[in-house]
Amino acid sequence: MAPKKLIIDVQSSRNNRKVDINKAGVKGIKYPIIVLDKKNKTQHTIATINMYVDLPCQFKGTHMSRFIEILNRYRQGINVKNLFTILNEMKKKLNAKSAHIEIEFPYFIEKTAPVSKAKSLMEYTCRLWGSLYDRVDITLGVEVPVTTLCPCSKEMSAKGAHNQRGIVSIKIRFTGLFWIEDVIKIAEKSASCEVYSLLKRPDEKHVTDKAYNNPMFVEDVVRTIAKKLQKNAKITWFSVESENLESIHNHSAYALVEKSLCN
Amino acid sequence: MAPKKLIIDVQSSRNNRKVDINKAGVKGIKYPIIVLDKKNKTQHTIATINMYVDLPCQFKGTHMSRFIEILNRYRQGINVKNLFTILNEMKKKLNAKSAHIEIEFPYFIEKTAPVSKAKSLMEYTCRLWGSLYDRVDITLGVEVPVTTLCPCSKEMSAKGAHNQRGIVSIKIRFTGLFWIEDVIKIAEKSASCEVYSLLKRPDEKHVTDKAYNNPMFVEDVVRTIAKKLQKNAKITWFSVESENLESIHNHSAYALVEKSLCN
Amino acid sequence: MAPKKLIIDVQSSRNNRKVDINKAGVKGIKYPIIVLDKKNKTQHTIATINMYVDLPCQFKGTHMSRFIEILNRYRQGINVKNLFTILNEMKKKLNAKSAHIEIEFPYFIEKTAPVSKAKSLMEYTCRLWGSLYDRVDITLGVEVPVTTLCPCSKEMSAKGAHNQRGIVSIKIRFTGLFWIEDVIKIAEKSASCEVYSLLKRPDEKHVTDKAYNNPMFVEDVVRTIAKKLQKNAKITWFSVESENLESIHNHSAYALVEKSLCN
Amino acid sequence: MAPKKLIIDVQSSRNNRKVDINKAGVKGIKYPIIVLDKKNKTQHTIATINMYVDLPCQFKGTHMSRFIEILNRYRQGINVKNLFTILNEMKKKLNAKSAHIEIEFPYFIEKTAPVSKAKSLMEYTCRLWGSLYDRVDITLGVEVPVTTLCPCSKEMSAKGAHNQRGIVSIKIRFTGLFWIEDVIKIAEKSASCEVYSLLKRPDEKHVTDKAYNNPMFVEDVVRTIAKKLQKNAKITWFSVESENLESIHNHSAYALVEKSLCN
Repeated sequence: MAPKKLIIDVQSSRNNRKVDINKAGVKGIKYPIIVLDKKNKTQHTIATINMYVDLPCQFKGTHMSRFIEILNRYRQGINVKNLFTILNEMKKKLNAKSAHIEIEFPYFIEKTAPVSKAKSLMEYTCRLWGSLYDRVDITLGVEVPVTTLCPCSKEMSAKGAHNQRGIVSIKIRFTGLFWIEDVIKIAEKSASCEVYSLLKRPDEKHVTDKAYNNPMFVEDVVRTIAKKLQKNAKITWFSVESENLESIHNHSAYALVEKSLCN
Repeated sequence: MAPKKLIIDVQSSRNNRKVDINKAGVKGIKYPIIVLDKKNKTQHTIATINMYVDLPCQFKGTHMSRFIEILNRYRQGINVKNLFTILNEMKKKLNAKSAHIEIEFPYFIEKTAPVSKAKSLMEYTCRLWGSLYDRVDITLGVEVPVTTLCPCSKEMSAKGAHNQRGIVSIKIRFTGLFWIEDVIKIAEKSASCEVYSLLKRPDEKHVTDKAYNNPMFVEDVVRTIAKKLQKNAKITWFSVESENLESIHNHSAYALVEKSLCN
Repeated sequence: MAPKKLIIDVQSSRNNRKVDINKAGVKGIKYPIIVLDKKNKTQHTIATINMYVDLPCQFKGTHMSRFIEILNRYRQGINVKNLFTILNEMKKKLNAKSAHIEIEFPYFIEKTAPVSKAKSLMEYTCRLWGSLYDRVDITLGVEVPVTTLCPCSKEMSAKGAHNQRGIVSIKIRFTGLFWIEDVIKIAEKSASCEVYSLLKRPDEKHVTDKAYNNPMFVEDVVRTIAKKLQKNAKITWFSVESENLESIHNHSAYALVEKSLCN
Repeated sequence: MAPKKLIIDVQSSRNNRKVDINKAGVKGIKYPIIVLDKKNKTQHTIATINMYVDLPCQFKGTHMSRFIEILNRYRQGINVKNLFTILNEMKKKLNAKSAHIEIEFPYFIEKTAPVSKAKSLMEYTCRLWGSLYDRVDITLGVEVPVTTLCPCSKEMSAKGAHNQRGIVSIKIRFTGLFWIEDVIKIAEKSASCEVYSLLKRPDEKHVTDKAYNNPMFVEDVVRTIAKKLQKNAKITWFSVESENLESIHNHSAYALVEKSLCN
């Protein structure tokens, strides 16, 4: 909003508000970006982005337009690898000691139906959080829809069992590079069944049977995923949540495991 | 926003925009209101409200504050019976030929679990649309969450069947009075099973079995409801939608029947 | 969900529900699509899509997977020109008498700041509705954020005037082709000022002054746009809404003009 | 979801997933509750509630229905004072070492317009977070809409200045009791002007003038509030955010100050 140097009256009149601001910047900008794709090299997507820096007490306001200029410069390729560069440029251009970026975007993967082999695209909501103080801290988040079938309902009933869509949300900190695709695979292999955009009749039978033979509570889903994440040597911290859109209630069942693996 | 009479410059300068406005007013006001309750006489709830009138081409702007004044006067009792009075007052106070009000609110009913008889409250999103030209036109809308179990999936599989939460949305025009409770009952009796906030173990077995023995496509749900609405002599028009939050997909299955019963 | 032919028991058992279904299909699928761009020929975007057909009373259920197959076939180019082809294929592949498609997507245009000439991208939410019975009916919708400054507040006050972001929503039916860019331009030229993602200091002065010198009620905005749309010979029907996120209230001011231009 | 004792097969078969779960429970239940009101003693509102407990690795699943039973018992009076009792009952009934509750609800206060003295209700979104390990930790959050007017825009322009609705979000931890009304007052007195549901013409002039004479960046708003919160001896921790719905952009300006005052 407000370059400091030229508006002398405004800023001097408020010089006495000695409060450091943790984050000041722009929030909720929608921008087309290009991200890395494990199979196809790159993928066009559309992000919702927040960008902040700290603002020490002697400065009245930050320079909101500079965030957009930086975004313009980098939008053709945003990924875990160059997030540090972007954050560093934010620190420099805004004379700040810390910089933060939050990026949310839909990501698509082509999936193959289990029996008919019909192909379709599935959407996963992804997030990147980056913070740079003296060192950089990057978190990757992926939301993965799955099917869960209730073990308790199955046990009590002769034939059916209530089942529903669940939304698994995994967040990880890691060393090196980590593919979105690999996070998704961990989630999809850890539920009663994975979901697809396109299923023909034999596929529908297959996923029905698979879920029935693989009942899991919301607690089972997060534990199964947690065990896999724990074993991955690249991961230094994770949180895994699952929210089941219960078919027998109008609310969700929920579970969370969060763990630091540093030592 | 803008009383016409006192701001002579402003309005005269734009006198030439000869366009009648269909609706002008306030949108998205949140207000606590009291509505009728079939069992408990009244129910406190919180509404999101839109209020509009028409604005002929010779008037520059409507008087936005008067809508809120009318809302203040009537919020202690808003229902199908006095909606005409509110609309009529809107027409008068705003010198309009037509008035429109849209009210959305959560409504709660105490439900009893099928076996344990445990009691809990279920929330249903309700809507009232009222329009007054020469005569009044009122529509009541209710969203009812239900369970649906896929007949095709059941038929193909030895034991399980995919099932999910569905959201049934019924809208009706009618003569006389119509209770929200009666719309909800029609929807809940027309799905594979109804949903509850509180289910103990024997209840969970009961709803699992009931849904399994009563498989319904999204198309079956809307047809079953449509047949019941058609038979109700008070109903002059209806639309019934159902959106199934498919447990095997990340999108919904949807069906709609809309019908005028006037003649 | 459910091919009719193979599940004989299921369907025959319910043969007696004689209700025609207006729309049955899939809702809320997210898919990457490519749309036409006036300047750059094409633009990658991500759509939320609903696809429906009618279902006469003698058919129990529609074939949900076929919608996704059709979507797969056409997603590389979706536009006003080939919407008829898509709808026609929906009718054929699903043996229906009518087909409906609803597509919502963000669309980006590069804008140039008024003084500094700095470039940035602005996002506009666009919608395409297509229906095919015997003839096709296509509606284009665009949401355009603008600035509005209150004439009444300006008139009464020595210096300031309350102003706010407004969301203009234009829907049109038309003959031939109509560019999204041209709808956006009509909206942006009809408010107190247009908005930008990137404004440097001299730009900020420019838009502040421009809005102050061009005060408009929400009613003025929709009337100004309506007059322009009326004069466009290609447009056969339009609706124009504006919702002002009032800076002095926590609700919106709203106006709507809707008009058929056929004769 | 899952009583442990009776489903022997199910649980023993998975005994090997040795992962402690941080939070397991129910999410997104809507329930009517009664909260404390500084002026009117109590206020009916409608809450969206999450309730969780920890689940050590030796237990397969938590007892989801018990959360709803506890909610039923306490919904007639939910407040900072009895949150400890509710959390304690959750721990006991679910044999847990920790319990968590998150409650979001709209809260209404009657406001008086500055000149006309017209009365109307304003809605504020409130939140209570409670966690009980060995000791209880309660956080109160309130969202307060305000007007902000840009000092830079005012400085550069002869007459106008862009202004917009801002959403201030204050979260506090404190000793003793803290009224929602007092948090709201701090926010409303720290912006360019407060907002109202109902303003007559002289009121509109008053708020326009007041905002113009009191320009504040988003950074100024959070600093002014932070200084007031710091001085309050009861507050042990706070975070204050403001998000300005910029009238000249389609994104927000944002600032955050977070501070622990313990020592």
